[in-house]
Amino acid sequence: MLKLYYTPATCSLASHIALEEVGVVYEAHRVDFSKAEQTKPEYLAVNPKGRVPALVTDRGTLTETPAILTYIAQSFPEAELAPLDDPFEFARLQSFLSYLCSTVHVAHAHARRGARWADDPAAQEAMKAKVPKNMADCFSLIESSMLSGPFVMGENYTIADPYLFTIAGWLEADGVDPAQFPRVLEHRNRMAERPAVAKALAAPQG
Amino acid sequence: MLKLYYTPATCSLASHIALEEVGVVYEAHRVDFSKAEQTKPEYLAVNPKGRVPALVTDRGTLTETPAILTYIAQSFPEAELAPLDDPFEFARLQSFLSYLCSTVHVAHAHARRGARWADDPAAQEAMKAKVPKNMADCFSLIESSMLSGPFVMGENYTIADPYLFTIAGWLEADGVDPAQFPRVLEHRNRMAERPAVAKALAAPQG
Ligand SMILES: N[C@@H](CCC(=O)N[C@@H](CS)C(=O)NCC(=O)O)C(=O)O
Ligand SMILES: N[C@@H](CCC(=O)N[C@@H](CS)C(=O)NCC(=O)O)C(=O)O
Repeated sequence: MLKLYYTPATCSLASHIALEEVGVVYEAHRVDFSKAEQTKPEYLAVNPKGRVPALVTDRGTLTETPAILTYIAQSFPEAELAPLDDPFEFARLQSFLSYLCSTVHVAHAHARRGARWADDPAAQEAMKAKVPKNMADCFSLIESSMLSGPFVMGENYTIADPYLFTIAGWLEADGVDPAQFPRVLEHRNRMAERPAVAKALAAPQG
Repeated sequence: MLKLYYTPATCSLASHIALEEVGVVYEAHRVDFSKAEQTKPEYLAVNPKGRVPALVTDRGTLTETPAILTYIAQSFPEAELAPLDDPFEFARLQSFLSYLCSTVHVAHAHARRGARWADDPAAQEAMKAKVPKNMADCFSLIESSMLSGPFVMGENYTIADPYLFTIAGWLEADGVDPAQFPRVLEHRNRMAERPAVAKALAAPQG
């Protein structure tokens, strides 16, 4: 059985929602950041990177949100969560996932995880100070040229949607007013109504 | 005809090599960072992110290295640059691409592009100071658990190989002695012997 290691309010929410969308039976195991469980040997044996998400399959463990989302879409083609038969549209989807992962998520991480990139507390404060501007810049680009609407890829709901929903959910905490981005906000509200999203959010929190 | 926007010695080298590997006829257009061409309206019309690589196709423009590499592999299946028929192996490949893009490339970028994440010059210096450690940590993980050998995915050469070759080529400049990572170094040396790599490196530089 698939087993997802997740932490509430992190990027693992995207994979969690995707599992709910395809309707597979899976086990969800919460990694408690308040106890630093992601840094303990037990968890490092699952994911040596010390991060969530990790998806354990019967063939091995997968990490990295874009890879897990793609795995879910390809393993459950009947759910039609990706344009699997069109290399250009598939690449357009991968480009969106990659931008969220390598630029937007990374911009956000500088608010709380600055210690990854500099030891000096003053440098960490300087990084934190720039997060609102960087997140707003990223979401300006998403709003103006990356969110086709109603879903990220256009008419079809895909794995890009739970990922955007997850990261757009961090805007307020990052000091950005989402009202500046009406299309992103509308997408976020529409996503919140999906049963799969409600189920993923109902998983043990805290 | 496919058109690649590239800059020598950047991550665009990975896509450049992959195009050479499949043997397609393409146009290569150099973006000159010394003239800040990536920030000019002409280039922003190609890629509003102001980064390389960008791949112009007859259906539109693709950005993000993992997406461009995946597009090349899927568009030229006869070159067998990805395990296209095995969702688990395909996800393992995507996971590797995603790690390079979101963690390793980002770790490197803190040496020269710190202004992205903090305005204070002292903070940028603090980020720069941590790059050798972060790059060494990333490559320790790659050496010990991600590079199956002889190629990234094992016996088969894939799009992960030019990407690893590209980023491993930055180690010395990032203050890391690659001799610590004999398997990565052997991979880098083996890659350097491929005709496709030589051709991509022979493109107009400077
Ligand atoms: N590139 C990875 C990043 C994973 C990641 O950074 N996860 C964060 C939560 S959003 C984490 O586990 N942080 C724990 C820590 O830094 O200790 C992905 O997209 O899955
Ligand atoms: N996530 C993107 C990153 C692209 C990127 O950062 N490219 C760098 C070169 S390695 C660039 O164009 N930098 C120009 C700049 O920052 O002005 C990818 O993997 O393609």
